[in-house]
Amino acid sequence: MSAINREIHLASRPTGWPTADNFRLVETEVPKPGPGQLLVRNRYLSVDPYMRGRMNDVKSYVPPFALDAPLDGGALGEVVVSEADGFAPGDVVLHRLGWREYALVDARSARVVDPDLAPVTAYLGVLGMTGLTAYAGLLDVAAMRPGETVFVSAAAGAVGSLVGQIATLKGAARVVGSAGSAEKVARLRSLGFDAAFDYHDGPVRDGLRAAAPEGIDVYFDNVGGDHLEAAISALRPHGRVAICGMISQYNSAEPPAAPRNLAMVIGKRLTLRGFLVGDHEPLREQFVREMSGWLREGRLSYDETVVDGIENAPAAFLGLLRGENLGKMLVRL
Amino acid sequence: MSAINREIHLASRPTGWPTADNFRLVETEVPKPGPGQLLVRNRYLSVDPYMRGRMNDVKSYVPPFALDAPLDGGALGEVVVSEADGFAPGDVVLHRLGWREYALVDARSARVVDPDLAPVTAYLGVLGMTGLTAYAGLLDVAAMRPGETVFVSAAAGAVGSLVGQIATLKGAARVVGSAGSAEKVARLRSLGFDAAFDYHDGPVRDGLRAAAPEGIDVYFDNVGGDHLEAAISALRPHGRVAICGMISQYNSAEPPAAPRNLAMVIGKRLTLRGFLVGDHEPLREQFVREMSGWLREGRLSYDETVVDGIENAPAAFLGLLRGENLGKMLVRL
Repeated sequence: MSAINREIHLASRPTGWPTADNFRLVETEVPKPGPGQLLVRNRYLSVDPYMRGRMNDVKSYVPPFALDAPLDGGALGEVVVSEADGFAPGDVVLHRLGWREYALVDARSARVVDPDLAPVTAYLGVLGMTGLTAYAGLLDVAAMRPGETVFVSAAAGAVGSLVGQIATLKGAARVVGSAGSAEKVARLRSLGFDAAFDYHDGPVRDGLRAAAPEGIDVYFDNVGGDHLEAAISALRPHGRVAICGMISQYNSAEPPAAPRNLAMVIGKRLTLRGFLVGDHEPLREQFVREMSGWLREGRLSYDETVVDGIENAPAAFLGLLRGENLGKMLVRL
Repeated sequence: MSAINREIHLASRPTGWPTADNFRLVETEVPKPGPGQLLVRNRYLSVDPYMRGRMNDVKSYVPPFALDAPLDGGALGEVVVSEADGFAPGDVVLHRLGWREYALVDARSARVVDPDLAPVTAYLGVLGMTGLTAYAGLLDVAAMRPGETVFVSAAAGAVGSLVGQIATLKGAARVVGSAGSAEKVARLRSLGFDAAFDYHDGPVRDGLRAAAPEGIDVYFDNVGGDHLEAAISALRPHGRVAICGMISQYNSAEPPAAPRNLAMVIGKRLTLRGFLVGDHEPLREQFVREMSGWLREGRLSYDETVVDGIENAPAAFLGLLRGENLGKMLVRL
């Protein structure tokens, strides 16, 4: 065990697109756990779009990251020292103190995962917050029903690719996705999407109209902006939008353009609902049971994009914002 | 009975704000009812903001008004000739063929109202579609709960003034309204609103913050634009918006500005829901029972702005769009 811990600090708050200069690699000593604590050597760090919001100094649903302190986020690691009942060295635990090599974790906020049940990274992705976000957003927030047409943006991303597959597994009549490259579009087809388009090929409105000429019933929004506007136009009466993210806007220094056709929500009786996965914990048991069943049966696939080394965590995050990942973006330590 | 019928035709489709030139007063013969029909002499015509949308030649939830044909809309009149069972001359009926002095009404789409139970104009307003819009939008669409803070725009209008009063009667902790003149703001206070502001006095955001410094839980939107943006900023977590109308946009020749802060719906888990009163018929019985009870007990007030003469119906409509009415805008024949 190295006596040196390396962690990524927020060096400055980005304005618009973040750059490598906003981050700093800092060496500290490996901390010692007190009573009720675990010393965890992190193995995988989750890199997620919502982290961009926490880099701004604004009041939100989670406090902003502090300057000159380590970032945090979902992580998987191995217990090195345990000062808490129920945890032993070698246990693989899921916790919230990522962006660092060693974490001092309060045992109450750690959960042991079973590496024999699924590859451990699944607990950060398909069977973790990412999967629950897709599952709850589609089935609970947007209340998708069998026979409906579903559109999801950022569909080759960690959440989007699961949304499309869950929709099909739950009986959607047609599942449509948008993504940012021809390679991603091809991947969506191999995942079973009925249609997919590259939003760089023309206005989103045109791509969506070609992919779903009879309109859509549900839109799972990861992007905002033009995507949301196109979806509002394409939605049929009583359609629903689950608003999970608006990645097109996270790096806008200016207030972003909003859908100019919002008045359509009246005549079409549309519902737009923002959500956070944390509110949907009651679904977790059903989610794990159903998703792990689909995984065992080979009916659900997921992609991972893995970057190695704590020093490359900022680059992984910047790549995620630029859409360089296929599926879940992870940093392996 | 005059042998001449006068009706208002749509002479041309407005671009932006309608003008008197878009309408034409046309004299026709009084029609003769066939089997199953009623000849109705109209007494009151309902003038409503949604009619503006029907003047555009766009596909919507109701077909657009035809050019060179009479407009239509809610009306109350007296049966002159009945060729249908269950209707007799002298009956006062509610029907959908306004904007004309005499209407040939299919008896199946007419309903006899009791002039002894309430002033007949109440059936176009507080006990009619206007009232049900307020009641269903607040209690069903926005699902207001006791103890919440409610904001309604166009609050001195027919729907808005009822929304605010119903909110108080149903236990809202605080009810706030915006309106377009000092006179209207004073009226809102006399109707029991806890706070009200004139949106001409400054940014809506500032007016709302002063009126509801701790934020709001429900926004009943009649206006859209700046009002919706200010409400999204003021809404507390899990807040709901019932989108009834966007009168600020009906006369925009350009696509209107949309709320630039829409991404806030995610972190605050907001729900925005457009609605049409026609979907809420199942609530009607409860609505009539509860609203007529409040009226009898003197706990619910409503205003009417009455314009006389079919020839002044276009002016009444234009005045409504400019906000010249207090409460329900009616044309008396």
